[in-house]
Amino acid sequence: MIKEKISQAISILNEEDVDMWMIFGRESGTIPDPAADLVVGVHYTWHSAFMIFKDGDTVAIVGSLDAAELEKKGYYKRIIPYVGGIKEKLIEVLNEKNPSKIAVNYSEDDIMADGLTHGMYLYLKKILSDTPYFERFVKSEKIVSKLRGRKSPTEIERIKHAISETEKIFDEVTKFLKPGITERDVWEFVLDIVDKKGYETAWEREMCPSVFTGEPTEGEAHTGPTHKKVEKGDVLNIDFGLKINGYCSDLQRTWYILRDDEEDAPKIVKKGFKAVVDAIELAAKAIRPGMCGWEVDKIARDHIVSQGFDEFPHGLGHQVGRSPHDGATLLCPRWERYGNLPYLKIEEGQVFTLEPRVRIKGYGTATVEDIIVVTKNGGKFLSSFQRELWLIK
Amino acid sequence: MIKEKISQAISILNEEDVDMWMIFGRESGTIPDPAADLVVGVHYTWHSAFMIFKDGDTVAIVGSLDAAELEKKGYYKRIIPYVGGIKEKLIEVLNEKNPSKIAVNYSEDDIMADGLTHGMYLYLKKILSDTPYFERFVKSEKIVSKLRGRKSPTEIERIKHAISETEKIFDEVTKFLKPGITERDVWEFVLDIVDKKGYETAWEREMCPSVFTGEPTEGEAHTGPTHKKVEKGDVLNIDFGLKINGYCSDLQRTWYILRDDEEDAPKIVKKGFKAVVDAIELAAKAIRPGMCGWEVDKIARDHIVSQGFDEFPHGLGHQVGRSPHDGATLLCPRWERYGNLPYLKIEEGQVFTLEPRVRIKGYGTATVEDIIVVTKNGGKFLSSFQRELWLIK
Repeated sequence: MIKEKISQAISILNEEDVDMWMIFGRESGTIPDPAADLVVGVHYTWHSAFMIFKDGDTVAIVGSLDAAELEKKGYYKRIIPYVGGIKEKLIEVLNEKNPSKIAVNYSEDDIMADGLTHGMYLYLKKILSDTPYFERFVKSEKIVSKLRGRKSPTEIERIKHAISETEKIFDEVTKFLKPGITERDVWEFVLDIVDKKGYETAWEREMCPSVFTGEPTEGEAHTGPTHKKVEKGDVLNIDFGLKINGYCSDLQRTWYILRDDEEDAPKIVKKGFKAVVDAIELAAKAIRPGMCGWEVDKIARDHIVSQGFDEFPHGLGHQVGRSPHDGATLLCPRWERYGNLPYLKIEEGQVFTLEPRVRIKGYGTATVEDIIVVTKNGGKFLSSFQRELWLIK
Repeated sequence: MIKEKISQAISILNEEDVDMWMIFGRESGTIPDPAADLVVGVHYTWHSAFMIFKDGDTVAIVGSLDAAELEKKGYYKRIIPYVGGIKEKLIEVLNEKNPSKIAVNYSEDDIMADGLTHGMYLYLKKILSDTPYFERFVKSEKIVSKLRGRKSPTEIERIKHAISETEKIFDEVTKFLKPGITERDVWEFVLDIVDKKGYETAWEREMCPSVFTGEPTEGEAHTGPTHKKVEKGDVLNIDFGLKINGYCSDLQRTWYILRDDEEDAPKIVKKGFKAVVDAIELAAKAIRPGMCGWEVDKIARDHIVSQGFDEFPHGLGHQVGRSPHDGATLLCPRWERYGNLPYLKIEEGQVFTLEPRVRIKGYGTATVEDIIVVTKNGGKFLSSFQRELWLIK
């Protein structure tokens, strides 16, 4: 997979006309560079430089103790170990290749292309001060974003596998849910299955799954499950994902807990849930390569508002892959905190979640999160789109 | 523990005469700030600012979906949620407090104080461009280093617990070792115990434990265990640590596999092992608050060389705590790649590993790594210092 991604990176360097892309860092176990998952694939301890060139060459300069592991993997054509310091070897390689544009991982907008710490930036500035190379640095945003976005068939298969295992667990949850159990009980139930199967959650276990039942009391997302009890008349939603073979799912599902005298959910609950489902459907139909993320977000957002509900306080969707938030291009509104992200162009082969939410006063929050891959003709669902509200008797 | 560390941080801000320390970042699950482990204690998704003031005040500005979790924890006096962007709220707080020195997490030398990515640095520069505050940024190195180094009694107890559980596993390994098994067998054996006990390794499982038997063929450290077989006449070493309740151990032990006709290890093996042990002993006796790290490193390094062995290609030791490489002050030589680290002053209460190594030609590598806490009278061992080579019949 790493070799596949390195060769994709070389193509992208040619498309973008950038001579070299460098991942530079240290102690990857402490501050990992998210792009290293794609094209490095080993841990490194001392200052390390992983360099991919437009001409197809690949060079890694690493501390002497890390060289063996990297040799064993065989991802890089040349591995240069050092003991005292990286400066001399780095300048040697730069002098030899003389790249006129050097993409480096920093980005205000895309965390996946922002692996270089400010301290390492200053360090590079210092050790390259007598050379012309520091002045040739450009942001690697576009390279990283294209590389992460373009899912290979193997990558799509892995994502689908993580999704289908997640859906199996949701089916178990449907059998388990009943009035009187707590959010925390559901959380434990899910993690028990995860552990038995030897899987890993897609994000921190404390909030994976997130479980919310009834009217929100403690905030509506990003909080761990509480001891709040599931009650009749609750709308209950779960946000959950798995990471299997390095690839993630990220799905949300909504249930309604019927009251004794009910055979179906109340009208307003059905209306709220339908607003969510229709928003997803409209967005999935409309999405095309070349659109900006905000345009797709707006379709879903406007629909929800047109149905009389508050707009959701977050983007419509994000990419999924090695990470549950996988790369720059987002389906999100043009809010300050999103920087340039809403304006990035959607590409074919990118994989997005669609996850609008609706607060239904007196009942809880309805959310559905499904996953599509972008094709020329719109979004193709990789997950089993939840079109119907799931009822618990 | 977080509250304890926040109040330590306030004291340190007063010692250093810095008005405010800010941790700034986003998506802590993707690029964690190592200092956030000490004084944040929750995950955050959107741009977030965690501010600790010399006057004892604490303020967190986080995305609206993260606020509830943080409220629940109660670490920060004021929690300010936002939806659109952090800029306005951040400037409001800065205007209100008007700090004249603002410590921010970037450092060329200390990764533990280098959590701010260069992209986030540029973002802060941009959103604060109409204010005087960006010009007031200083490096947080000293604050982070003091905060991380000063282990509280609870922290020492946790480290000791991780150490003693690690030592129990080494005892199991001694019973398991025999000629014919592979490095990978030992690795699996150790991880089986780790999993059965429900523990977590201190660093990535692939190399925790690291196992090296006999003459090195594929590099001497930082490589995962191979299918190389343990043979009679091998010196075998293991580098291993656990993380329990958030605190780490990091120990190395050495065994010798006796040949059929041997009752003891060959003279040269014993000499090499003794050089390692004596180097540790000398360093532990000599270390004092106020010394520079390189001075302690030199004592051990010189001793090894005086015994006719090559000097080790790394520092004598590093701090241990929440992370197996826990903070700036290092016991290391004055090599370029260590920057200013060898010159930092050792403080009372800091916890260091001591881990010299000796290559014994024809046999393998002898390493011992033990852990001391610095006191006024020298280093006090927190681990059961391995003074004798362990023999396998």
